[in-house]
Amino acid sequence: MTDTAPRTTRHSGLQTDLYQLTMAQGYWKLGRADEEAVFHLGFRKHPFAKRSGHDGSGGFALACGLEQAVEFVEALGFDASQRAYLATLTGNDGQPLFDPGFLDWLGALTPTVDLDAMAEGTACFAHEPLLRVRGPLVQCQLLETGLLTILNFQTLIATKAARIVAAAEGDPVLEFGLRRAQGLDGGLSASRAAYVGGCLGTSNVAAAERFGIPVRGTHAHAWVMAFPSEVEAFEAYASALPNNCVFLVDTYDTLRGVDRAIAVGKQLRARGHEMGGIRLDSGDLAALSIGARERLDAAGFPDAKVVASNDLDEYRVAALKQAGARIDVWGVGTRLATAYDQPALGGVYKLSALRPDARAPWRRMVKLSSTPIKTSTPGILQVRRMRDASGQARLDLVYDVEFGSVELADEPVAARTIDPTSEAPLSLPRASEVEVEDLLQPVLRQGARAGAWADGAPALAQTRARASCEIAALPERVRRCDAPDTYPVALEPRLAALKAELIASHGANE
Amino acid sequence: MTDTAPRTTRHSGLQTDLYQLTMAQGYWKLGRADEEAVFHLGFRKHPFAKRSGHDGSGGFALACGLEQAVEFVEALGFDASQRAYLATLTGNDGQPLFDPGFLDWLGALTPTVDLDAMAEGTACFAHEPLLRVRGPLVQCQLLETGLLTILNFQTLIATKAARIVAAAEGDPVLEFGLRRAQGLDGGLSASRAAYVGGCLGTSNVAAAERFGIPVRGTHAHAWVMAFPSEVEAFEAYASALPNNCVFLVDTYDTLRGVDRAIAVGKQLRARGHEMGGIRLDSGDLAALSIGARERLDAAGFPDAKVVASNDLDEYRVAALKQAGARIDVWGVGTRLATAYDQPALGGVYKLSALRPDARAPWRRMVKLSSTPIKTSTPGILQVRRMRDASGQARLDLVYDVEFGSVELADEPVAARTIDPTSEAPLSLPRASEVEVEDLLQPVLRQGARAGAWADGAPALAQTRARASCEIAALPERVRRCDAPDTYPVALEPRLAALKAELIASHGANE
Repeated sequence: MTDTAPRTTRHSGLQTDLYQLTMAQGYWKLGRADEEAVFHLGFRKHPFAKRSGHDGSGGFALACGLEQAVEFVEALGFDASQRAYLATLTGNDGQPLFDPGFLDWLGALTPTVDLDAMAEGTACFAHEPLLRVRGPLVQCQLLETGLLTILNFQTLIATKAARIVAAAEGDPVLEFGLRRAQGLDGGLSASRAAYVGGCLGTSNVAAAERFGIPVRGTHAHAWVMAFPSEVEAFEAYASALPNNCVFLVDTYDTLRGVDRAIAVGKQLRARGHEMGGIRLDSGDLAALSIGARERLDAAGFPDAKVVASNDLDEYRVAALKQAGARIDVWGVGTRLATAYDQPALGGVYKLSALRPDARAPWRRMVKLSSTPIKTSTPGILQVRRMRDASGQARLDLVYDVEFGSVELADEPVAARTIDPTSEAPLSLPRASEVEVEDLLQPVLRQGARAGAWADGAPALAQTRARASCEIAALPERVRRCDAPDTYPVALEPRLAALKAELIASHGANE
Repeated sequence: MTDTAPRTTRHSGLQTDLYQLTMAQGYWKLGRADEEAVFHLGFRKHPFAKRSGHDGSGGFALACGLEQAVEFVEALGFDASQRAYLATLTGNDGQPLFDPGFLDWLGALTPTVDLDAMAEGTACFAHEPLLRVRGPLVQCQLLETGLLTILNFQTLIATKAARIVAAAEGDPVLEFGLRRAQGLDGGLSASRAAYVGGCLGTSNVAAAERFGIPVRGTHAHAWVMAFPSEVEAFEAYASALPNNCVFLVDTYDTLRGVDRAIAVGKQLRARGHEMGGIRLDSGDLAALSIGARERLDAAGFPDAKVVASNDLDEYRVAALKQAGARIDVWGVGTRLATAYDQPALGGVYKLSALRPDARAPWRRMVKLSSTPIKTSTPGILQVRRMRDASGQARLDLVYDVEFGSVELADEPVAARTIDPTSEAPLSLPRASEVEVEDLLQPVLRQGARAGAWADGAPALAQTRARASCEIAALPERVRRCDAPDTYPVALEPRLAALKAELIASHGANE
């Protein structure tokens, strides 16, 4: 519950929904536990509103959480006490739910799946797989819930952070959300994902230590209240921490607070230190920041920063910019750390191919639904991103690795969108126009780290830099928060034909 | 990140905002670290909307999370590697932020605070303290962030669960939210709090094991897709887990799925087992549940349950009830586990009294704000609940333990509400009409468990029962989700006078 945890001392097997375990026993009893399966993890709708208070959705997401997802897969297993717990569960007749032979089998389980995934910080789109898990059917199934939990949340928060950072137009954004996060660990993940999404730092010391994120903070209202007057509080702080002075000026009267901060800033300067700035945490942040900036400049503190916080998000940051606010640093808490306006990403994890063993042909499958957006894509999928010479993302193509990708031609080729709710035609670019990259890269082979991951997970600062480049490489009309265009994601033609055929044949079968 | 943790192997000191540590160093340098302080934790607005899609707020909250909060306090401390990390932090001049002497002092820190709190499962109201922390100023300050994180989230989710359980009018509600929770630990806390709030069980196996919560689950769409036909999938499941059959019937065509479930239910019965029921997860749940119920009844399965899930919350449950849905068991995921429509409770933790040592008089203090709702209450506070002979809650009175409570009289006494935004007059009940109870009970004394906690934390099932009684003891007009009345919380008259005086004198001082 509290993050007082060494990273992985227990197996992760119980971190799942019960139905994964009952299905696992079902496959085990049928002798199908080790059939080879392929599952993909993705989402059907970009997070966040098309406009503040509107429905619709954003134009992109930033993949995040893979490192923790990999650690989760590697921890798959069930120790003796976990199996003893499972042995206590009963069915509707009061008899044990789980067979002792199945529990013994679980005790011997170690992860042997193959995992291919988009690097953290990759821009990703609805209906694309962010992750492919291939391996024994039961293992793939047992991993579903945890993979969704980890990737849903970090992807959501990294995306939210990217939107807020974009609204801040280059100003630093700090994440201050721990106290309102969904648990201490929710705050830890949120700080990590917010950093990947572009925040400059966090107030969360545990996250800073664990992930190497810059950490920031000065003092609270309680500090000011603990002294007979505001100026005494600032003087005491300056004397105790002369190299970390950003004075919170709104405990009583904000602009009088700024004047007191300036007075103490002059004392600091006389002692060879420089005031970092002031922080506003309530009231009309546009007007107060303008007033504070004027006072600071007039008093000879042009480099002192105006930091602002108080229920900020991308919409409020943009509105404050619009109103001429003179804010240098944005402190964002609740609305970032919980993704307040949409606190869950509806990620899904779908079975798309199955075979009894490696010598048998694949059976590819779709999940149908009366809600067309929920129809899944069959196969063993890869995402090929096509970028123009300047590096800008033009189009993604989802293809089955056994069928292969399309050959681009000298002329644009017509294709279908992957979005099951849309008939909009797409055209694939000319071969001469684009460079291509396959986004799902090897992470685990037979449960062991592979490819670039054989040397360890990417450094978080590198992931953050990747995210920044990825966003810069999106067309502005896709990247923007306000009524973005849909980025084109095409389905490779043979895969599109197979999908249509499977949908039609289900109608016949059923 | 993953819950692979033994409960407390590391100190919790870094699970805080940096400013708590910089302020701590400030107090330490000034020789004020061990001044005696009093802080209270509460919230200013009940969570959730007055009506679906409306502003306003609910009528109550359920206090939750105290057991984890106590564990967090008990883990306060800084081990050598944590202090080594802090020693690496620098200020704006590149020099160390923290003094080596301060870090040594942190290394010797152990929790010695007194903690008084409302029992988990207690109905609580805006502006009341849920928790009082009294002890060395620096310790109180270091604990702020984690206490808020833990109590904000669990109180939020327990309250959401109570609202959904009320909407279900006695039907069982199961919590299925792990895959959309804010991290695996967010899901763990959410499952615990949802159980306290009245859910019958969870799908989250780790939470079930850890907290002794009933666990439920059968199979997913992937199970059905892994077989050539739906009926073969149901037969296979029935053969593997005959005592746990709730068939998910909406993979292809829902009502045909019900017919197939019935066919397999008859086979099960012939083998001496009974089908538990069917589950609906998409489509028009009202119409489909009515159709499913008719088919089940006609086929001789009147006891088979209709379970429904799909983005449910209190509003959708109530609307489905209104539409005549024949749903027996409600599976609630995302909207419960993230409190989707309001994913954070705005809890605050305010300094309200301070003295240099135990021989000195208390200095009581208020935090002022241009936003009146943010004005805090001074003192060392207790909450006295007054219940009528039937046990129904009539009024809460917040008083300072040094001033004492009011003597109730033979006639109603006029009083002021604690809500700083309201002038509505209240009247205290006649002495003969009510029984009184002080809600903040001893939990820690000098850092050691005290009072009822000396024998250990309350059992979770007992906490859940308390919550149920507490909600039943609220007036219906306060308890309801739709435009509830405000429950009366009065400020004891001497305390009210002191607060007014402190507010006025701040005007003069500042």
